[in-house]
Amino acid sequence: MTLTIALDLMGGDNAPEVVIDGAALARKRTPDVSFLLFGDEAKVRPHLARHPDIAAMPLVHTADFVAGDAKPSLALRQGRQSSMRLAINAVKDGQAAAAVSAGNTGALMAMAKFVLKTLPGIDRPAIAGPMPTREKTAVVLDLGANVDCGVEHLVQFAVMGHVFARIVTGVAEPKIGLLNIGTEDLKGNDVIRTAAAMLRASPLNADFYGFVEGTDVTRGAVDVVVTDGFTGNVALKIAEGTAGMYSSFLRQAFRSGWRAKLGYLLAKPALDKVRARLDPRRYNGAMLLGLNGVVVKSHGGTDAVGFGHAIGAAIDLVRAGANERIIEEMTAVAGRDTGAPAAAVG
Amino acid sequence: MTLTIALDLMGGDNAPEVVIDGAALARKRTPDVSFLLFGDEAKVRPHLARHPDIAAMPLVHTADFVAGDAKPSLALRQGRQSSMRLAINAVKDGQAAAAVSAGNTGALMAMAKFVLKTLPGIDRPAIAGPMPTREKTAVVLDLGANVDCGVEHLVQFAVMGHVFARIVTGVAEPKIGLLNIGTEDLKGNDVIRTAAAMLRASPLNADFYGFVEGTDVTRGAVDVVVTDGFTGNVALKIAEGTAGMYSSFLRQAFRSGWRAKLGYLLAKPALDKVRARLDPRRYNGAMLLGLNGVVVKSHGGTDAVGFGHAIGAAIDLVRAGANERIIEEMTAVAGRDTGAPAAAVG
Repeated sequence: MTLTIALDLMGGDNAPEVVIDGAALARKRTPDVSFLLFGDEAKVRPHLARHPDIAAMPLVHTADFVAGDAKPSLALRQGRQSSMRLAINAVKDGQAAAAVSAGNTGALMAMAKFVLKTLPGIDRPAIAGPMPTREKTAVVLDLGANVDCGVEHLVQFAVMGHVFARIVTGVAEPKIGLLNIGTEDLKGNDVIRTAAAMLRASPLNADFYGFVEGTDVTRGAVDVVVTDGFTGNVALKIAEGTAGMYSSFLRQAFRSGWRAKLGYLLAKPALDKVRARLDPRRYNGAMLLGLNGVVVKSHGGTDAVGFGHAIGAAIDLVRAGANERIIEEMTAVAGRDTGAPAAAVG
Repeated sequence: MTLTIALDLMGGDNAPEVVIDGAALARKRTPDVSFLLFGDEAKVRPHLARHPDIAAMPLVHTADFVAGDAKPSLALRQGRQSSMRLAINAVKDGQAAAAVSAGNTGALMAMAKFVLKTLPGIDRPAIAGPMPTREKTAVVLDLGANVDCGVEHLVQFAVMGHVFARIVTGVAEPKIGLLNIGTEDLKGNDVIRTAAAMLRASPLNADFYGFVEGTDVTRGAVDVVVTDGFTGNVALKIAEGTAGMYSSFLRQAFRSGWRAKLGYLLAKPALDKVRARLDPRRYNGAMLLGLNGVVVKSHGGTDAVGFGHAIGAAIDLVRAGANERIIEEMTAVAGRDTGAPAAAVG
């Protein structure tokens, strides 16, 4: 069945070029996908010319767009005709199965929450993103949507991450870890210890690894890393910064003399593989999970390959029925039929 | 003037050998330092035999020691005759100017807090430690002593880190950053925003950089990174884990064929410099700041070189009068004479 994805053509540092080229790449991999395009006609036409198949798809013109540095609350109030908002509206109205944008994360989350609302059983949507480890790719959530989190939020993140890892990462029984400052039962604060106890008492227990420290995350101990949005965001950016620092030290080292330069040339094919393994484009596409609809955020500075991967993730989430599975697991974990009328009885 | 340092000979993975060899190394650099030794006589004598100068120093025998995995509360109650506790007592009693241990961090903090108490104006001691950046070494605090922090604690950490960076890192006007998930004024939670406002209104304003993200930390934007103990501990271990992962990928790459192997051999001297730059031993010695006495924690898995550096840091802190300077700065920041009798008048 053909799947329609709404695209915000104007979001991201290299929009609309990268968005349109990325859409063409995604369509080569998944020919039965079609797009509903939102953007400034005059600005997008020159780029559409390169891809006649995309050019033939419906384009909704709007001159309005959300700036990368716009305050989310302001974007929500003033950006009702923006390409980002119209793409989200298309999901709400059933015209598209998912929306993909490389624009302002805060604004995207604010608009998506306002327009789509959260799934039954989910109090707050979370931003989930992939992180490289020694063994595989782990999914980390929340990455910044929720600065302060209660017990129930961490449990909901665990459910959403568990479903996400099965669908997008493709792990049959994804191990879930709660990010903490030690692995003993007494470490951390009340919120994190209570969340651990709740997960142990739930059907997720079989896949609950327990507490993980930063070094456990990078060695690949778990597939899903659950944490509040403050810690998750700091962890992601420290990891990114540390890898960047290491690369920069290596570049300096390989330039430090003829021996090092020659050594670099010989080892280059092997080193390129390391670089590819840590390539941020492979880890592109943060998901806004827990919404009544599929919304994927591509990295703002991505290229067409990265944007194509973000579209691919959206397709996976829709085709696998991610949201239905989140509702099912959440119901099982909560031990009740969430929002069922029966609750009103007695 | 000769300075006496109390040494816990039994703390750390490779005690007492590494502690004794480290003490000998420190004494080569600083001949006017002497040690007060605490440990199990039968176990330490064979190692002391290698260093006649250290062997001539006073040794207080105790068979009791704090295990690396002991619960801090239990160690506090049951370890009153442990080598760690006796070394801290020696600081309290004025027999030593500082104590150094490579043992259990939680137990060391609990004992030091109980025995030494905090400095005037300081509510909670913090663990401060160095972290490599592209430009220099930054000091990060808290690294895990305080899981939940209020505004006043973050401000106190800023003062302690500022003094520490001037003394140990040797920066004349150290820039202070508050770790956050964005650099705009509105990012983060109330606690962190209020702490920023208080620092801006204080004499520390001249050296207050503002909010920093993880990537700002690694690029070396600031000399002091202030954060709560949960986030700081996660950040440190994610950085450590990411650097380890990168090294492991590189090792695999350099072993992947004859070209890569030859390239490695040619580039080895330059690569060794990168390794030395990220050598954890260079970043050894977490300081327990804010105590009424100087206590330095060496990494549990350190070698003699690392332990020697930890002793060196203790000497620097004592000689520069770190605690007196913390009291002075804290008084200036609080805008009042902390604990002065005048407060009781009126």
